[in-house]
Amino acid sequence: MPEQKLLFTPGPLSTTSTVKRAMLRDVGSRDAEFLAVVREIRQELLAVGGVREPEYTAIPLQGSGTFAVEAMLGTAVPREGLLLVAVNGAYGRRMVQIAERLRISCEAVEYPENQPVEVERLSQVLTSGQHFTHLACVHCETTTGLLNPIEDLGRLRDQFGFGFLVDAMSSFGGIPLNVAAARIDFLVSSANKCLQGVPGFGFALARREALEGCAGYARSFSLDLLAQWRGLETDGQFRFTPPTHALLAFRQALRELADEGGVPARYARYAANQQELVRGMRALGFKTYLEDQVQGPIITSFLYPPSPAFDFERFYGGLGQRGFVIYPGKLSQAAAFRMGTIGNLGVAEIRALLAAVRAVLTEMGVPVPVGGRAGMPKEIA
Amino acid sequence: MPEQKLLFTPGPLSTTSTVKRAMLRDVGSRDAEFLAVVREIRQELLAVGGVREPEYTAIPLQGSGTFAVEAMLGTAVPREGLLLVAVNGAYGRRMVQIAERLRISCEAVEYPENQPVEVERLSQVLTSGQHFTHLACVHCETTTGLLNPIEDLGRLRDQFGFGFLVDAMSSFGGIPLNVAAARIDFLVSSANKCLQGVPGFGFALARREALEGCAGYARSFSLDLLAQWRGLETDGQFRFTPPTHALLAFRQALRELADEGGVPARYARYAANQQELVRGMRALGFKTYLEDQVQGPIITSFLYPPSPAFDFERFYGGLGQRGFVIYPGKLSQAAAFRMGTIGNLGVAEIRALLAAVRAVLTEMGVPVPVGGRAGMPKEIA
Repeated sequence: MPEQKLLFTPGPLSTTSTVKRAMLRDVGSRDAEFLAVVREIRQELLAVGGVREPEYTAIPLQGSGTFAVEAMLGTAVPREGLLLVAVNGAYGRRMVQIAERLRISCEAVEYPENQPVEVERLSQVLTSGQHFTHLACVHCETTTGLLNPIEDLGRLRDQFGFGFLVDAMSSFGGIPLNVAAARIDFLVSSANKCLQGVPGFGFALARREALEGCAGYARSFSLDLLAQWRGLETDGQFRFTPPTHALLAFRQALRELADEGGVPARYARYAANQQELVRGMRALGFKTYLEDQVQGPIITSFLYPPSPAFDFERFYGGLGQRGFVIYPGKLSQAAAFRMGTIGNLGVAEIRALLAAVRAVLTEMGVPVPVGGRAGMPKEIA
Repeated sequence: MPEQKLLFTPGPLSTTSTVKRAMLRDVGSRDAEFLAVVREIRQELLAVGGVREPEYTAIPLQGSGTFAVEAMLGTAVPREGLLLVAVNGAYGRRMVQIAERLRISCEAVEYPENQPVEVERLSQVLTSGQHFTHLACVHCETTTGLLNPIEDLGRLRDQFGFGFLVDAMSSFGGIPLNVAAARIDFLVSSANKCLQGVPGFGFALARREALEGCAGYARSFSLDLLAQWRGLETDGQFRFTPPTHALLAFRQALRELADEGGVPARYARYAANQQELVRGMRALGFKTYLEDQVQGPIITSFLYPPSPAFDFERFYGGLGQRGFVIYPGKLSQAAAFRMGTIGNLGVAEIRALLAAVRAVLTEMGVPVPVGGRAGMPKEIA
């Protein structure tokens, strides 16, 4: 295998060597040693979300983040429920697709991909006559890197009485969010995003009262958060074989988050990474897809430069040869690529990436600055 | 953390240090390097099953083995289908539970836990009038360690025209089974059993014609084998974040299986392990739950000895202190514990376990041989 590349992706991402080395052990999934690991992880996840037992509980679940999203929707919404999904990107749309597959009655409020979910319009939909039992929204839309105003939406919860379901996949642990203050009933995220573990499982934070009210709702045997929780509470074990190595890595990752200074410190590092990236990319002439005021620190979409010499596959390949992995775009309306700024990365790594971007553009024959508008503020360019 | 213990469990199990060290890398889930890993794994899984493209295809799926079982049932059986499950243990019963949760019409044929599924009786049920579209059966019932006659059941497939669904979780790669000759349409197993990877995903081998006939059946968005396969075929990528580290480990594990001499060599090692274990445990006076002729080499159930001084928790703890992890029982009718003989273990490790068993029994004040019938053949004792 070639040397380790640096991952500028929304996860799997670059983890520390200590996190990876925590996987050099085989532990029995029912052994006391491992059950203590699971206990520590569940407690620490609550702390990251700023909540505690018994009001909230943490439920790890095998599989990718999407499995956790499906488990959340399939567990929380009753057969006679009606789900409203706020959509401004692929992950909001995915929640609608999941609901449709599960035959959950569902409506979507669609917003442009470059605009946050807007509380006023959502409020109008909620008062339009239909009684929506649940509202689902993505916190950081990984499609673009946009942040949605979860706390503001949470304020509607008391007024309208819906269950509030949040996909915080790419933001949890990297962007401060008080789960209780935001009135969240269920939040899902994944091990391999801002918490800097390796992939293999996701997790939910659930308001216990909401969770306990879900008996009989789950459409799936495996993707059943209530049954998963009951299993964990009964004997501390996962119902089904857990990814023991990924959990050992995750425990180490959570300890490293605390050592770094918790969520505020991690947020500050990611924000510094992202600002350095955007500064440097703009100096090279690139334009961000989003306006700065709705851009989060997790991942940034850059529009393809107008030069006919630019070819994304060559760009991606050239960066890869230099040891940098970036991410393709996922916009429905614009040609763009993405660069993540989370994981075991700092400003030095961002600068190394920027130098490689410049080198690859030159190699491809793309004039730098691309488009000839380098250094101009985005709103003027 | 204490020293590495040896796992005498049905998985997660003891893997080689080279398998674990393959996880010391972060790779991008959409990067060419990783896609080559996925390709190699998919090809090698077919080879382990003795089949090839285009007749069969291999589909890895995130989550535990149970997730793969649910994906198989939920993908393969149409809404108007009728499933027959042959049950002689907890994992057969689990398939019935999954079917019920998915609202799949389902009937179970129940057999005692110490007897294999019997072809004649199953044949009678299949001719009883109802048209069963699918038959599901567990190959090695991990509940007991019993082997079911999958090849014999496969012979009924042509006669009755059902889709044949096999849970080969704890046997695949450790017990020779030609998937095509057994007329299997879908077989599921997991990374962390006889293939000696780490947990984090399962996989299906599917007869392509059967798989392609399943459009529109899947009840779940995530647990949809057809969509998962289409995603892999389209761009080589998992639809949703794969457990990259577990897949790197698995590629190494598959190479080590080939180095060992493939499935026949691994089967021979497991069989030797299991024979040594049973010989030694019988010498200590223990009785196996199963008769030898239905016992597989994967895991063995031993009845609690009659001594009032025997306490399973103390027994388990004493073995754990000596570095050996065994497995509790799961029988509905008898008090037993289990010992697995798969993973990176040989006869030397089995003998070390046996010495520890003797020491712990003595420590507990259980007379050895337990029950005073040591060394007697089981059918006489």
